[in-house]
Amino acid sequence: MSSVNMKPSRYQAIARTIREGILSGRYTPGEKIPSIRRFADKLGCNKLTVHRAFEILKHEGLIENKVGSGSYVRFPEKVSAPRGIFDFHTDYLDESLFPYRKLQHIFNRLFEDEKAHALAPTPAEGDAGLIRVLSQFYHVPAEQMVIISGAQQGLDLVAKVFAAKLSDSMLFEDPTYPGAISLFKARHFVALQADGPDLAALKRKLRQTSIRLFYTMPTVHNPTGTAYGQKKKEAVADLARRHGYYIVEDDFLSEFRAQAGRRFVDICPEQTIHIKSLSQTTVSGIRLGFMVVPKNLFDKFLYAKYSSDIASFGLMQRCMREFFEQGHYRRHLKKVEKTIQIRKARLVELIDILDHLSVSPHQAGFSLWVRSDRPMASFPVPWSRGEDFSFSPHARCYFRLSFMHMDDKTFAKGVDYLMRLWR
Amino acid sequence: MSSVNMKPSRYQAIARTIREGILSGRYTPGEKIPSIRRFADKLGCNKLTVHRAFEILKHEGLIENKVGSGSYVRFPEKVSAPRGIFDFHTDYLDESLFPYRKLQHIFNRLFEDEKAHALAPTPAEGDAGLIRVLSQFYHVPAEQMVIISGAQQGLDLVAKVFAAKLSDSMLFEDPTYPGAISLFKARHFVALQADGPDLAALKRKLRQTSIRLFYTMPTVHNPTGTAYGQKKKEAVADLARRHGYYIVEDDFLSEFRAQAGRRFVDICPEQTIHIKSLSQTTVSGIRLGFMVVPKNLFDKFLYAKYSSDIASFGLMQRCMREFFEQGHYRRHLKKVEKTIQIRKARLVELIDILDHLSVSPHQAGFSLWVRSDRPMASFPVPWSRGEDFSFSPHARCYFRLSFMHMDDKTFAKGVDYLMRLWR
Repeated sequence: MSSVNMKPSRYQAIARTIREGILSGRYTPGEKIPSIRRFADKLGCNKLTVHRAFEILKHEGLIENKVGSGSYVRFPEKVSAPRGIFDFHTDYLDESLFPYRKLQHIFNRLFEDEKAHALAPTPAEGDAGLIRVLSQFYHVPAEQMVIISGAQQGLDLVAKVFAAKLSDSMLFEDPTYPGAISLFKARHFVALQADGPDLAALKRKLRQTSIRLFYTMPTVHNPTGTAYGQKKKEAVADLARRHGYYIVEDDFLSEFRAQAGRRFVDICPEQTIHIKSLSQTTVSGIRLGFMVVPKNLFDKFLYAKYSSDIASFGLMQRCMREFFEQGHYRRHLKKVEKTIQIRKARLVELIDILDHLSVSPHQAGFSLWVRSDRPMASFPVPWSRGEDFSFSPHARCYFRLSFMHMDDKTFAKGVDYLMRLWR
Repeated sequence: MSSVNMKPSRYQAIARTIREGILSGRYTPGEKIPSIRRFADKLGCNKLTVHRAFEILKHEGLIENKVGSGSYVRFPEKVSAPRGIFDFHTDYLDESLFPYRKLQHIFNRLFEDEKAHALAPTPAEGDAGLIRVLSQFYHVPAEQMVIISGAQQGLDLVAKVFAAKLSDSMLFEDPTYPGAISLFKARHFVALQADGPDLAALKRKLRQTSIRLFYTMPTVHNPTGTAYGQKKKEAVADLARRHGYYIVEDDFLSEFRAQAGRRFVDICPEQTIHIKSLSQTTVSGIRLGFMVVPKNLFDKFLYAKYSSDIASFGLMQRCMREFFEQGHYRRHLKKVEKTIQIRKARLVELIDILDHLSVSPHQAGFSLWVRSDRPMASFPVPWSRGEDFSFSPHARCYFRLSFMHMDDKTFAKGVDYLMRLWR
């Protein structure tokens, strides 16, 4: 467009510098980058040249303009990740690990039984029968429960209820679940230690920033697989009571943590928004979960749910109720736990042979958080990179290896593939 | 709490006055009401007395405080409406009018066929097969389509994509769908005439306010059952192009409008966000629909969908695909159309006998918008009151009579019930 003569190398070099600044974590998402004028002054070049570099970065989706405010590093907006034959990326169960014949059976019974009203509308809070069985199974109060279409919707409802500017007042663990980072445009993090968040850092954040929500996965953390110690849990609950923030407890895969201890929803129910995915424990195709919210927020959450999608799919809710009532769910969890143990042992065995890879103990769930002392390959990898879970450059030494989204045969071949790749 | 001696009658009288102002439409939702000081000055009373009246209204959910800004009339946040035996309120099809045995059949086939992957995850944009058949059936481009969990989610995605302050920049028909009013906290309306919006009023709004979106139901309007004339449609499209606003076309029940003419998605696809409910045409228990969005907004909508609930329930999507492919959907629509004609004729016959009730011609869909020259009963009624669809006092002379959420027997008895009630 421009008629000014510019050496291509000049603006491309500037774009490269800024790009590296973003990719290396020097500029993090949501951060304002210096203005065109400042770059031009600093680099001793034409503003038009910098402008052109900015245009390239905008086109690449790395930065975005906010009217009247400047240029900002964009939050990643990934919809899905590449998946190969050997999928060590997806942390859901493979279909082959779910007893879907049982589900088919229940579906048919519901269709045959006219009184079951297979396709009748469901109240916004969910099917009363499903709420009852979940309340019993998970030991949470039925009257504070809302059935949701998966845990992601739970987070979305939190965003709706607390509205405006959550980016400034919500705290996250570092590393954390990428879906939460991008939904909330997360900017405030507290580092995770082996037994929970760094308490000194947490207190510092609470002093510096007006935190209203703290998003945490205390029982099986994603991606690190760790659990909070009971003492730290009490401390975080205590701070929540004193500072008045709500704990968003993502009860991720707690079914697969032996001796999980008391949850935040048990310790300080009045400060806890508890989210439980059922897609994660069954199959991702079943979009269901529930949340348990403080009494004083219930109406707001119910209304947010209603205005999001009226109600979650009723037939599946009624189906899941029977799946629980007939004991299929409990049996399914037991079988999955066995598979986890077998597959994890196989992977740890492989990792132990390799000098540059290591895993910390006591990880639970469908993944291993692996540390690598060598720089990781830059070609497309069949696992999830550490930098997907954190803006800190430190995270680049890690990757998450999920091992439950393949059938037994594919998993066995996948392990051979990893062995060839890593040696 | 207060030790000041106040006559109960005084503050209660003030609360009553303001309450009447709100209920009569003098103060509309989202509007700021005069301050405590101004009320006290005007009424010549203590500020504490007015404060106490405000507290009553807050407790009743009629007003709310915004910090540092004052008191505002609250938007209604209804989750569901009362339903009796004779449900002339719900504008969904009754289960008995849907061929659910066909659905059961398809469900089973999908479960039996391993290649169908009944419970496999679905891409965020939806099942490719369902997108293909919908694109053919509804004549819209497949590559701009996102499958959603019902039309309400479509509106929710619009709210997400256009974010912040939509209340100030979104225009609605008056009357309009209550779910849209409360989701968007609608404040700007344009009166609906028999053939579409009042164009002079629309142009005035466009001059006065920076409108970015116009929400409309041009083919079967809810609640009035009317359709836009083709000329008005062209005019609205033309204004959209010139003023740069997007038309949110809620293609409500257009299947039941003969000679619907060209839609906004046909006339100006680049300015139209088209939303189509499939729950409305099948049964409300099936939470599905789709939207077709301008090319330049597709990525944003896809990401908004993903961060709302990852993807809509895949098994139901695959099921619906076959339901379409096997011709069940087309046959179902035909049957429903016949039932509409029979039931509507029966109701119009009844209304024609009564001097104080009337309906305008050319209404389509599952409801009749009825005008009453007598004030309506204040006891709980089994239909929807006009004021649910509009803040204008004018709407109180109308009610919406929906007639498709009962089986044939219940409908027949319901008509007798109405006859007794109205005579």
